[in-house]
Amino acid sequence: MGRRVRVAYLGPEGTFTHQAARLWTDRAATGADIVPCADVQGVHDTVAAGSAAVGVVAIESSVEGYVVPSLDALLASADVVAVDEVVLDITFDAFVRPGHGELVEATAHPHGLAQCRRFVEARGLAPVPAPSNAAACRDVGDHQVALGPPVAGELYGLETLARSVADFAGARTRFLVLDRRDRARDRLAVDAGRATTWRTMLAVTPTITGPGVLARVTDAFAVRDVNMSSLVTRPLKAREGQYVFVVTLDAAPWEPAVRDLFGDLLAAGDALKVLGAYAASPGEGGLDGALADEAPTGSVRAGDPEAVLAEGLLW
Amino acid sequence: MGRRVRVAYLGPEGTFTHQAARLWTDRAATGADIVPCADVQGVHDTVAAGSAAVGVVAIESSVEGYVVPSLDALLASADVVAVDEVVLDITFDAFVRPGHGELVEATAHPHGLAQCRRFVEARGLAPVPAPSNAAACRDVGDHQVALGPPVAGELYGLETLARSVADFAGARTRFLVLDRRDRARDRLAVDAGRATTWRTMLAVTPTITGPGVLARVTDAFAVRDVNMSSLVTRPLKAREGQYVFVVTLDAAPWEPAVRDLFGDLLAAGDALKVLGAYAASPGEGGLDGALADEAPTGSVRAGDPEAVLAEGLLW
Repeated sequence: MGRRVRVAYLGPEGTFTHQAARLWTDRAATGADIVPCADVQGVHDTVAAGSAAVGVVAIESSVEGYVVPSLDALLASADVVAVDEVVLDITFDAFVRPGHGELVEATAHPHGLAQCRRFVEARGLAPVPAPSNAAACRDVGDHQVALGPPVAGELYGLETLARSVADFAGARTRFLVLDRRDRARDRLAVDAGRATTWRTMLAVTPTITGPGVLARVTDAFAVRDVNMSSLVTRPLKAREGQYVFVVTLDAAPWEPAVRDLFGDLLAAGDALKVLGAYAASPGEGGLDGALADEAPTGSVRAGDPEAVLAEGLLW
Repeated sequence: MGRRVRVAYLGPEGTFTHQAARLWTDRAATGADIVPCADVQGVHDTVAAGSAAVGVVAIESSVEGYVVPSLDALLASADVVAVDEVVLDITFDAFVRPGHGELVEATAHPHGLAQCRRFVEARGLAPVPAPSNAAACRDVGDHQVALGPPVAGELYGLETLARSVADFAGARTRFLVLDRRDRARDRLAVDAGRATTWRTMLAVTPTITGPGVLARVTDAFAVRDVNMSSLVTRPLKAREGQYVFVVTLDAAPWEPAVRDLFGDLLAAGDALKVLGAYAASPGEGGLDGALADEAPTGSVRAGDPEAVLAEGLLW
């Protein structure tokens, strides 16, 4: 491509999102000015105003699930839609200021603190949330350990206390690349010829209900043989106790089966909004395929003794 | 009842969780010592060790959705299960220290900051996350506005700058009351005679898969006529890209239809874990009933012009 583009991302410099924005421009072989925004809404506003070609925000962590502010911003936006995704391996290092004092606190974004809980507890540090991992590194006090991406320690001149301190190795975070909705179909038309595996992120708001509304919606997918790789119910902010379903489908919105599915849902009275369509990042799996023989501690299975079933199921 | 019990909660004093713990003990007419814990795991550990009769943690906000650390702690725990729920109306007031300086920052728990975003932006304040809303009030600086429950301002001797500053009036948060799993059935047996509307929170981990695993699971609910009021997919921490479904059912685990459903899921090879069973709090609705004619901005409906459908659906 070679065109120089502006890419907005959730800053400050040195965040995982910064790293994701760089990876996207490298992949697109696009010369780019990568500019930080103060919050998710700022990324949306910059893209909607046309001041940046695309915006990059984190949407889902393999450890922490959906990033709710990013999801809600997409749900609320009339102008901005996801057109690509980037997946990053997440590794946290522990940094300290040169010449630091006694270390009594650990600071990071709340997701970072959650992902490094064992390290924080083992060292007896009090967790102190920061607006971002990079901000934690930039602003780390003499009595604090900052947890963040390897690049952040270097960027802010810190010493590395320990490497790879997250509880679970192999954590990954998925980022969405946002564009204006009125340009999205043109962009996707170009990509459609290149990529083979597509994902569509869809908001389904049921308006005609009764018992089993969720079963009705998931049935509609099964009928058209469209696979979901995730589903969450999110509250409709305007109405407490009422929900919108956010579904990720393993197909593109223009595929015949998906068009049929959308037609079925519309006919059933559901309001629909495609939140994004993008070529699946290599290595990103859905729910299909062999799942591991693992389950949360305390789960029970067929064949367990009756007393074990009773305790696990509270029946 | 009248027995004096220890109730652990996610502190410090003055959090919404503190308020929820008080409400629960008032409702149970139980004399209680209400003791704060430093984090969600601390509440679990205190309950598991028998040092408190029950623990109280926030689980879901009508604005922000599930409280992921609380949900994951329940998924990970072999010993602790939810046996009751408390629902609170959430109102945020804005507090300042007497004799404060120029106000340039707003501080609260990240969920509190998210719920008061318009107020924070309108005043041009920089958001600064705190471990809890109460901690934000306790530790508020001379240049900061703290956002928190009405009770917290009073508790920490602050002046009220503005009342009811949340973006959406009517926000509510749901709290779970935790007990030891090995005592839960005895406790629930007592409640079962009193309450009529039950909820069960269930973790379903599919181990035999193929296309449409989510449709298979939701179908199983429809077959037994058991209604779900929410469903989220959560990543299995041990295995990236693999998921557990967390479902809330509108029934008790010992009801015949639910026992049949659990039997069906077990027979299909799913691992199951009941995370909680509790009498539904008055006024808590599920997905059933008339949903409002509202949907996220940019949603499309049957009958919209083709161009509107095309832009909304990206097809």
